[in-house]
Amino acid sequence: MNKKKVVVALGHDALGYTISEQLDAVKNTAKALADLVEADYQLTITHSNGRQVSMIHKAMTELRRIYIDYTPAPMCVCSAMSQGYVGYDIQNSLKSELLSRGISVPVSTILTQVTVDPYDEAFYDPKKAIGRYMSKEDAELEVTKGNYVKKEAEGYRRIVAAPKPIDIVEIDAIKTLSDANQVVIACGGGGIPVIEQKHILKGASAVIEKDSIAGKLAADLKADELLILTSVDYVYLNYGKENETPIKSMTVSEAKSYIAQEQFGETDMLPKILAAITYLEAVPTGKAIITSLDKTSDVINERVGTVITA
Amino acid sequence: MNKKKVVVALGHDALGYTISEQLDAVKNTAKALADLVEADYQLTITHSNGRQVSMIHKAMTELRRIYIDYTPAPMCVCSAMSQGYVGYDIQNSLKSELLSRGISVPVSTILTQVTVDPYDEAFYDPKKAIGRYMSKEDAELEVTKGNYVKKEAEGYRRIVAAPKPIDIVEIDAIKTLSDANQVVIACGGGGIPVIEQKHILKGASAVIEKDSIAGKLAADLKADELLILTSVDYVYLNYGKENETPIKSMTVSEAKSYIAQEQFGETDMLPKILAAITYLEAVPTGKAIITSLDKTSDVINERVGTVITA
Repeated sequence: MNKKKVVVALGHDALGYTISEQLDAVKNTAKALADLVEADYQLTITHSNGRQVSMIHKAMTELRRIYIDYTPAPMCVCSAMSQGYVGYDIQNSLKSELLSRGISVPVSTILTQVTVDPYDEAFYDPKKAIGRYMSKEDAELEVTKGNYVKKEAEGYRRIVAAPKPIDIVEIDAIKTLSDANQVVIACGGGGIPVIEQKHILKGASAVIEKDSIAGKLAADLKADELLILTSVDYVYLNYGKENETPIKSMTVSEAKSYIAQEQFGETDMLPKILAAITYLEAVPTGKAIITSLDKTSDVINERVGTVITA
Repeated sequence: MNKKKVVVALGHDALGYTISEQLDAVKNTAKALADLVEADYQLTITHSNGRQVSMIHKAMTELRRIYIDYTPAPMCVCSAMSQGYVGYDIQNSLKSELLSRGISVPVSTILTQVTVDPYDEAFYDPKKAIGRYMSKEDAELEVTKGNYVKKEAEGYRRIVAAPKPIDIVEIDAIKTLSDANQVVIACGGGGIPVIEQKHILKGASAVIEKDSIAGKLAADLKADELLILTSVDYVYLNYGKENETPIKSMTVSEAKSYIAQEQFGETDMLPKILAAITYLEAVPTGKAIITSLDKTSDVINERVGTVITA
């Protein structure tokens, strides 16, 4: 008997910042995920890795500075390390939470590569901010290393290309585990971006938007639901304004007209709505839900969250 | 139709030292593995991570020195990162090699935790050397941090506990992919050691011997063969002496009597023989082969390697 297949996208709220913060945050996240497993959902979980990949990239750069015989770690290697790190923390705490509830569902992480197009316009106009805020001096240092930076209100941040995902290289393995009703963590941090060049999968210096891959993953798996967990209970119209209104439900065409009205923040809510659209255009019978991580148990009873349907 | 199930254990020769060395080494390793896939073997691959986990541990320590708001990365987190790093490099190069041969078998890596016994005697007598050789000064610094070091002919090395593996936490996921005739990379670096404490899987400061987990993995999967790839074509009697003789085949009881004669090096060949015994005692119909990575294609024709049977 097949369970209800749900792709869950976790943002940075689900993970925290430092190593000890993440260890605490994933315990809370594991409770939310375990509620879904207990309600008999089959989960395929994807997660962001901006903070983690940035931490690892910094560490590998420091190492290189001190031990010159170590070669620099490219972004794809740092991304792979971050999938190992975050995947382990999630599968460890979710497995522990399930064991404590007497549930023996297998949980595992599949390291995932995702092909991108070398001619994707993102490579010519990097926009995705990664890592923490930097001082002007550190930002200038980044630029001398050939990296891109962007000034935001709180300081400078490094930006990299965020090309669109084309194919999930390990999709067969993910499908096999999903079809076996196991919990799978996959496409961490959007997946390790690779470019296919004459049968060689070459690691690319880029990151794939976590929401973007979540939509693609839900489409590929023909998931029954796509659940995007973030820090707000609903998607809002006129967000942050006096006439702010939560959206309880909308169709894809309504979503598109709100996008045309620039209702959604370009770097936070818009990618989530676009992910929902990608998924629903591939799986018109599906349901995308955007809500807060803390309200996951209410999702099961349909008491909270913005529901998007075809 | 089920293929011949083989668990392949890769040592550090298959991976190299630095990031660029590993990138080259895995291309060669991928050719050997692809030969086996082409000969219709289903592969479950495990690998060492001594050098990689040591590099990552160093990097995370340097990071901590410079950015004090980062908390230290425990050994289990470094081990998880190394599984991400090595797993990605192997799955990337093997997938590329298979694509170039027109073979479309899925390849993926499962992050793997392995439970160990907190009362394992290894915790009271750490013996497993990890990482590169250190100067006397660096070794003394390690000791002040509460770590253990050991003097070898070429210098000092850090040593950690290498407890015996009890259970592979993600074995169900590994079995599912193996039964689906896919290539699976699992239990990298022996697996991330965890201790089960009242349903909580707590990361342990230890490493599990790669050969040891390979034997356990082959036993759990009821593999048809366990193939341990190293730097020599055969296991030898009187290794390095004038009367050195390659062993073409031996039984478990012969192996045990050679062990009693201290024929095998404690840190290199002995763990491989013990892994073969663990496997063959669980799967008496099985066949363990120890040979050189470079001779993998000859294994298919049974032209090289020490064959151990029950």
